[in-house]
Amino acid sequence: MSATLQSADVRGAARRLAATGTAVRDAALEQIALGLERRVGEILAANALDAQAAAGERPAIRDRLALDPGRVADLAESVRAVARLADPVGQTIREFTAPSGIRIRKLRVPLGVVLVVYEARPNVTVDAAALCLKSANACILRGSRMAAHTNRVLVDVVRDGLVEAGLPADVVTAVEGGHAELADLIADPSTADVVIPRGGEELKKMLLRESRIPVLAAAGGNCHVYVDASADADQAVAIVLNAKVQRPGVCNAAETLLVHRDRPELLARLCAELEAAGVELCAGEDAFATEFLDMKIAVGTVDSLDAAIDHINRHGTGHSEAIVTADETAAARFCNEVDAAAVYVNASTRFTDGGEYGMGAEIGNSTSRLHARGPVGLEELTTTKYVVHGDGHVRA
Amino acid sequence: MSATLQSADVRGAARRLAATGTAVRDAALEQIALGLERRVGEILAANALDAQAAAGERPAIRDRLALDPGRVADLAESVRAVARLADPVGQTIREFTAPSGIRIRKLRVPLGVVLVVYEARPNVTVDAAALCLKSANACILRGSRMAAHTNRVLVDVVRDGLVEAGLPADVVTAVEGGHAELADLIADPSTADVVIPRGGEELKKMLLRESRIPVLAAAGGNCHVYVDASADADQAVAIVLNAKVQRPGVCNAAETLLVHRDRPELLARLCAELEAAGVELCAGEDAFATEFLDMKIAVGTVDSLDAAIDHINRHGTGHSEAIVTADETAAARFCNEVDAAAVYVNASTRFTDGGEYGMGAEIGNSTSRLHARGPVGLEELTTTKYVVHGDGHVRA
Repeated sequence: MSATLQSADVRGAARRLAATGTAVRDAALEQIALGLERRVGEILAANALDAQAAAGERPAIRDRLALDPGRVADLAESVRAVARLADPVGQTIREFTAPSGIRIRKLRVPLGVVLVVYEARPNVTVDAAALCLKSANACILRGSRMAAHTNRVLVDVVRDGLVEAGLPADVVTAVEGGHAELADLIADPSTADVVIPRGGEELKKMLLRESRIPVLAAAGGNCHVYVDASADADQAVAIVLNAKVQRPGVCNAAETLLVHRDRPELLARLCAELEAAGVELCAGEDAFATEFLDMKIAVGTVDSLDAAIDHINRHGTGHSEAIVTADETAAARFCNEVDAAAVYVNASTRFTDGGEYGMGAEIGNSTSRLHARGPVGLEELTTTKYVVHGDGHVRA
Repeated sequence: MSATLQSADVRGAARRLAATGTAVRDAALEQIALGLERRVGEILAANALDAQAAAGERPAIRDRLALDPGRVADLAESVRAVARLADPVGQTIREFTAPSGIRIRKLRVPLGVVLVVYEARPNVTVDAAALCLKSANACILRGSRMAAHTNRVLVDVVRDGLVEAGLPADVVTAVEGGHAELADLIADPSTADVVIPRGGEELKKMLLRESRIPVLAAAGGNCHVYVDASADADQAVAIVLNAKVQRPGVCNAAETLLVHRDRPELLARLCAELEAAGVELCAGEDAFATEFLDMKIAVGTVDSLDAAIDHINRHGTGHSEAIVTADETAAARFCNEVDAAAVYVNASTRFTDGGEYGMGAEIGNSTSRLHARGPVGLEELTTTKYVVHGDGHVRA
């Protein structure tokens, strides 16, 4: 792991990687998986040092940080799963002969260098490296100091695997340091072609404010479920409970329930079921603006579909929004007029996920409007290139 | 034309516009075309004021600024041509049923609000407004003070056309002011969803440095033609001359000619033909780094295909790069390893253009790696949305 980043080395490695075929990259992924399995003792010893230093942290944080033999085996398996995904690089998006006679092909090529900034989750180190490698992108990993010992060993395993497969180690580089070092890194647009934050709101806000490298960011997920006048009651209950309770701490969990005023009996039932599930009900404008990420939900009634759409477009963060309705016209209007990366009709907001969307894996979720909106998988880690063939064609 | 921008009005207009169908937007485009035809006298009178104030400028600038009855008729026709293009909004990109049973559709939706920053070309006012309107984006136009009188009338025509078609006038807004006002505008990420600069290098650099709104930018076009060892001599001459001479002041014109050292006779012929066409030949590292935008070209020899690729990746700006070769392996390596928005085999770099690529029209050309790379047409003015249907589906 380099203490200071050598940008030229990373760019050179990215160039070499971009010119390789699928087989070489898949072989490197297999070497990485084997390395994780072979060096499990070393990984766990390093993780124990991080765990010891984090003994005073909240249980949720300690759980994220902790590895055990099963979790390391899962990491190796997740690398092999990435290797099995379709390679997006070189895929033809469009191919045609222009009126001038030139033959134009638009195809996917790697983005180049991806900077991933994340918190104390050692699995992100491996997952991000694997997804970038599969899509032929070099990556710079900037993890949390809290996981520094673990990350050093994991990055060493990854770099060894690259070299064993004949690729430059600098395809994956890690950087350490605190806020000042990160600020320096993102102040230089030549560091990377994109920054992908995986982590808390403060981190994302800091990147959006300070980065001169484009940020592919997820806003917080202030997600809504709107229960329309025509909603099926059982579907509404199942969807609202799932969207709030199944995993309350994630960005696609529901934070507000809106119910049409013509369904007071359903509102009462929903509130009762939520409370029975241990969810605290909140009301008022402050609650509507809050992403609880907890067993809390804001509850409100609306006079109409229009009012629901207005409420969601005002308070939502453009992540995932759901309507429960039996009315196809209302569903169509909701889908058309609610401005979000994903809109759901009679389904839970919790489905916004690369795995659920058939991407196989995701490196994050974007609420940006440019480049990629929604789960960011392998395809979203590519850009395009036009390859044009002529026979001496010149422009008239 | 508003002196100060009312962001809320623009966002509201963008929302209303996004919910309209193709027919309403096409009707507005026709109203705009009719307005341009009807108010040609008023437009030319305003243009005469701008022309008078610009009397001391270079002929190229005065020519860009100047309108006449024929050019106004062309503007109206270009608006009608945009109306005839396929509407990208609502197009399905992908549609499938996930293993969970939810039905997922990924479709194109408008970006939202597009800020276009440009120089003293009144045609950009109309073209940019038309392309944004067709793709259901609101736009904020920030033209040059030099064209202020003309732009005021043109924007008035556009806004009247919008209102006649039942759309809010604030779908198209113009802002005036100098550098300080522009700096304020781009410091606020809520102003627009993307900035598209059309204009000189200084403008683009300023936006890339200062904008907190994502910039879809074209780097300068330091474009190369590489004449390989196996090149057909006549093709090489035709392509090099076209790439340099056909329109030397544009970003897809060639600025450097590289010739394989095994073809001294072809190098001599190319130099002679370029000089005969009035092109000044330049040499040295400074020349290789220069985008002349003029009847000048840097000339160098390279020892190999590898050296040519290295040279281009070091000096190029990722715009348009060409190889002339009869060797398919060399062509494939050039296409794979040269990092640019468009690579050409036996064709002129001058083809990088929305019209030539079958997009019908372009609002600019991007050398950014995110979102869109190459000509920016209607499709590139959209983002995506996932619309997901279930029957009470919840996540397991």
